[in-house]
Amino acid sequence: MTRPARARTFGLACGQLPTGELNSLADVPGVRIGHHTRIEGEIRTGVTAIVPHGGNLYRKKLVAAVDVLNGFGKSAGLVQVEELGTIETPILLTNTLSVGTCCTALVRHAIEHNPDIGRRTATVNPVVFECNDGYLNDIQALAVTEDDARAALDNASTQVQVGSVGAGCGMSTFGFKGGIGTSSRRITFDGTGYHFGVLVLSNFGRAGDLRLPDGRVVAPPKAPADQKAPEKGSIIIIAATDIPLSDRQLKRVIRRSGVGLARLGSFWGHGSGDIALGFTTANMLSHDETSALVDLRILNEERIDLLFEAMADATQEAVLDALVAAGSMTGRSGHYRPALVDVL
Amino acid sequence: MTRPARARTFGLACGQLPTGELNSLADVPGVRIGHHTRIEGEIRTGVTAIVPHGGNLYRKKLVAAVDVLNGFGKSAGLVQVEELGTIETPILLTNTLSVGTCCTALVRHAIEHNPDIGRRTATVNPVVFECNDGYLNDIQALAVTEDDARAALDNASTQVQVGSVGAGCGMSTFGFKGGIGTSSRRITFDGTGYHFGVLVLSNFGRAGDLRLPDGRVVAPPKAPADQKAPEKGSIIIIAATDIPLSDRQLKRVIRRSGVGLARLGSFWGHGSGDIALGFTTANMLSHDETSALVDLRILNEERIDLLFEAMADATQEAVLDALVAAGSMTGRSGHYRPALVDVL
Amino acid sequence: MTRPARARTFGLACGQLPTGELNSLADVPGVRIGHHTRIEGEIRTGVTAIVPHGGNLYRKKLVAAVDVLNGFGKSAGLVQVEELGTIETPILLTNTLSVGTCCTALVRHAIEHNPDIGRRTATVNPVVFECNDGYLNDIQALAVTEDDARAALDNASTQVQVGSVGAGCGMSTFGFKGGIGTSSRRITFDGTGYHFGVLVLSNFGRAGDLRLPDGRVVAPPKAPADQKAPEKGSIIIIAATDIPLSDRQLKRVIRRSGVGLARLGSFWGHGSGDIALGFTTANMLSHDETSALVDLRILNEERIDLLFEAMADATQEAVLDALVAAGSMTGRSGHYRPALVDVL
Amino acid sequence: MTRPARARTFGLACGQLPTGELNSLADVPGVRIGHHTRIEGEIRTGVTAIVPHGGNLYRKKLVAAVDVLNGFGKSAGLVQVEELGTIETPILLTNTLSVGTCCTALVRHAIEHNPDIGRRTATVNPVVFECNDGYLNDIQALAVTEDDARAALDNASTQVQVGSVGAGCGMSTFGFKGGIGTSSRRITFDGTGYHFGVLVLSNFGRAGDLRLPDGRVVAPPKAPADQKAPEKGSIIIIAATDIPLSDRQLKRVIRRSGVGLARLGSFWGHGSGDIALGFTTANMLSHDETSALVDLRILNEERIDLLFEAMADATQEAVLDALVAAGSMTGRSGHYRPALVDVL
Repeated sequence: MTRPARARTFGLACGQLPTGELNSLADVPGVRIGHHTRIEGEIRTGVTAIVPHGGNLYRKKLVAAVDVLNGFGKSAGLVQVEELGTIETPILLTNTLSVGTCCTALVRHAIEHNPDIGRRTATVNPVVFECNDGYLNDIQALAVTEDDARAALDNASTQVQVGSVGAGCGMSTFGFKGGIGTSSRRITFDGTGYHFGVLVLSNFGRAGDLRLPDGRVVAPPKAPADQKAPEKGSIIIIAATDIPLSDRQLKRVIRRSGVGLARLGSFWGHGSGDIALGFTTANMLSHDETSALVDLRILNEERIDLLFEAMADATQEAVLDALVAAGSMTGRSGHYRPALVDVL
Repeated sequence: MTRPARARTFGLACGQLPTGELNSLADVPGVRIGHHTRIEGEIRTGVTAIVPHGGNLYRKKLVAAVDVLNGFGKSAGLVQVEELGTIETPILLTNTLSVGTCCTALVRHAIEHNPDIGRRTATVNPVVFECNDGYLNDIQALAVTEDDARAALDNASTQVQVGSVGAGCGMSTFGFKGGIGTSSRRITFDGTGYHFGVLVLSNFGRAGDLRLPDGRVVAPPKAPADQKAPEKGSIIIIAATDIPLSDRQLKRVIRRSGVGLARLGSFWGHGSGDIALGFTTANMLSHDETSALVDLRILNEERIDLLFEAMADATQEAVLDALVAAGSMTGRSGHYRPALVDVL
Repeated sequence: MTRPARARTFGLACGQLPTGELNSLADVPGVRIGHHTRIEGEIRTGVTAIVPHGGNLYRKKLVAAVDVLNGFGKSAGLVQVEELGTIETPILLTNTLSVGTCCTALVRHAIEHNPDIGRRTATVNPVVFECNDGYLNDIQALAVTEDDARAALDNASTQVQVGSVGAGCGMSTFGFKGGIGTSSRRITFDGTGYHFGVLVLSNFGRAGDLRLPDGRVVAPPKAPADQKAPEKGSIIIIAATDIPLSDRQLKRVIRRSGVGLARLGSFWGHGSGDIALGFTTANMLSHDETSALVDLRILNEERIDLLFEAMADATQEAVLDALVAAGSMTGRSGHYRPALVDVL
Repeated sequence: MTRPARARTFGLACGQLPTGELNSLADVPGVRIGHHTRIEGEIRTGVTAIVPHGGNLYRKKLVAAVDVLNGFGKSAGLVQVEELGTIETPILLTNTLSVGTCCTALVRHAIEHNPDIGRRTATVNPVVFECNDGYLNDIQALAVTEDDARAALDNASTQVQVGSVGAGCGMSTFGFKGGIGTSSRRITFDGTGYHFGVLVLSNFGRAGDLRLPDGRVVAPPKAPADQKAPEKGSIIIIAATDIPLSDRQLKRVIRRSGVGLARLGSFWGHGSGDIALGFTTANMLSHDETSALVDLRILNEERIDLLFEAMADATQEAVLDALVAAGSMTGRSGHYRPALVDVL
């Protein structure tokens, strides 16, 4: 397999902090990413899975937070993450109309590994995010199946796959072909090295608004007829780290995804569901905890600016990563999205 | 068909305001309710649909709001209601693990009536709420199908059906059999009569905590072995009115569902997803609006206490309504819930 | 000094959990309460101070949270508590129009003990809550001075003073004389005993709505002419504990103050600023922390129902405590509030 | 009086929308701005007043909203704006430790014009925002008096005064001298022209992070010793418009201030209280309303992107406006901030 083109291949680096080894969300130890892509006829869609750790996530929940920059979106599972500050399933990304199917797939997956769910213990909160790939994909076909979702989970690895893969298959960004992108930063605290990664499902931005880190504004070569219509896109931003954080701290960090998006030329458009979720692998909470009190480690909040910076930089670069990796695509009804690299 | 037993049949009335004609959510003109019940083998579950008006809801959205008293819940669609202050699909209630299936059913229903969804216009935000009926129902069976959801929608009428119907089939409340209950109030402003209704999917409360309006504390005759376990229930509260309100005003009103629950003896337990949604049929927003500005009518907020009172009273009474209407039931693994009326 | 009448003197106990030794917020080790009362001419007002620990609170901040049940209120300092999850000054309670003066008093107090504020370190976030005592007090006189606020801080002790003291001087509750009340509960986790206390500044509720724990509804003997006017009151609820909690957990706990208020007959009226703040003395964060990571202890959230119950019970009882302790009072323009005990 | 230098004098224009006549918040009809500046000895501070309309604001409240980008701030009055969606006093800006004094000044101002406050009607919610000018100003002196606040209110006019005036006197931005800046945009809907204005109190940003619209990164000529310390600044953003909006719509609009800040090089630092308030003069709510229902006009939300763009552009430009207008200043202990124009 050829190594994918990445944002940095084209000199598109963001900020001053060093990247992780893979420059990927999967630089955070234990985090794996899986994709399942569906291309057939008018279908250009898929599912992407983020598996936060290698164990049973329902049994060993992770501290997590969500932040909604603009809530024109149909994601599922956010209410409970907000209330309890934890996630208990892998995270699935897919197209807007397939959220229900992916929820059901996560429920079945959780029951398989935890036969006491809904019988001798609580139920389970599936977390599913979405963007609308309806420009290139026949989204009305509801093509994604539970098997597709399972395949994405089964494919989870640390391999870097970006661009038109998984949920990113049919996505568009600033009038170009969009999709999955990722980036990471290394952070040192008190002599210990930590990892901070971001993965985006990028499907936002109006054609003509994209701004590169060097200030260039880049538009698709020949503007498609729909480009002046108000954006109906979205962007999902997933952040992971092994830095110990509380859920409140995580929420503050992931909110800075909005900084990255603004640098790229977005103003978080009305029709765009811009939603971030973050988790830390450093604070695990046992579903079967028997002690009344639990120890947690958090960040001295005076140091949090470094994470704000990492979040802004890695979000910005992950979007560029998606743009650079995604080749041009023709989809539903002959709709076409050019590749950014053909313009650069 | 015999008329169902209602809370007031047993003298369980709440507050001083007069009830609507049916003492039901369906007293609000245009609002209809449908149930589809599944009882077979170990299955005790179903779907309840609230249809806010008789037209195409995607085309004529209603001003709406959600309020999360306690977010240990898996409901879908809340992010967008919070951001935009509108609903654009009927509301479905079901068991926790069937949220995904009901989302998909609502998506298909919306596409049928609006073939431009995801093609020439935006996607659609299905709103689905849930409670965990796993004590009486084999919830792992994921028994609810898209057809079940469709049947609930198709059954929508103004007929009063309460107790173990639809999503209420397998629910429990304060150790008794719970389910669907409803209540309404009539409110007069400046000489005009309005309607205010509440419907609950009641599945909350610890055995022994139930308090009736006259102060009596009522416990199930013989406490099942599981009753001391922390509650794994939930309650969903749907409010409707034809009083003109803004989404902010609606949110303030439905928050008072918590008052009704507290009067019943609940302290909004950790494991209970206590979530309210309200909508007004008096403020309709067109999906295809061409004017830049739109007229809205809202309430002079100095009068809102009357709605707070109506919300608290009708929530309290709707739960009692569910308890009174629900007969005793034996379900999964021989699990049994007694009927409140057998104790009264 | 005679011991004050307390709610339990009149048989008004709430819930099943045992109380602390003093049945006071000050049962939580380190917490002290001070009052300064102003009665002269048409003035019936004052300041109450809650001092969370004996050290320098700016240097050793405590984990804290706020929850707004109904935000018709003018309290100060909540934005930062919400963002950072800590408090760094004592908490002052006073009348609505004196919030500014008390903020300034807290600023001066913090500077005195921390001469680096605003010079070599950050500024300081004063936390001040208020209720409107304008029925009995000439609130337009802005009678409270910075010296009054200082006196309340200087008077801080563990002595139980309730009723018409400090900020409670001119307050009204359900048409009766209201004011300061307090209550506490003892909680045992894994064999260790903990303390949980609540103090209220009670100035809410419509005459005729008060409900005692035994179900009796109690109205003032002869209703004053103003009683039908919509409530312009408020209630401030301060909770403290030595149980280790995160700010998110604290927020969940203090939200259950609404349960206590509802049991008393309130529906959280439109014009009432019903706001709660909670802090734990078990999680201290150093302003001068040099380590990047900090250890925190939190509660196994499956046990949190016990705290929800304590919060509901202690809030309910603290209000009754204020009502029982406050003697009848005549104030501004001959306005009169009867004492609850004269009716009981 | 010489006309002040403005951002556009130096070619620093943001976005494509046309500006209003004054390129000021005061382009919105009825809105006036007043400053009172205090420079003496070690004092470099002041007060800025925004007067939303020419009438009695307590009697004729305006629809308003607040949005907290980063809540490390001590502003007052936000809880009630959030709950009720209105403002009822002018808005004051000042230094962090003078919030209390400005609250009291607003209370007295409101009572003067409304002698029924706290007697025959409700109390009043003063809205005061702040930034920390402690680098140049002896903030511990608490120099601002109620008379200073009154002077700012009395000085209100449509005259453009920017830079080191009023509350902006001692502020810093990206290591340069900051202060007050403003900008506006003209927006046309259905053939009618509207106004949209922003005013900032700019005191945020790390030295070296400032990015101009053309991509240039600009740092102060010789970095002061303190520049690497984490930012202890803040920025307050006030938006006004005569476009009819609901409070929810306003909240969505003003949130896009974060886009403007991000374009300038900020990542909304931990220690920075970044808070926005917006109001519309097109929706006035009478304190003495006697009808139960009230008519409101709102925006067809599909058109809101234009306001998002205006908000992002005008915020960005208002900060540049403050930077361009503010001359270099030496303040407390010889602390010095250079002027941006000396570098351009």
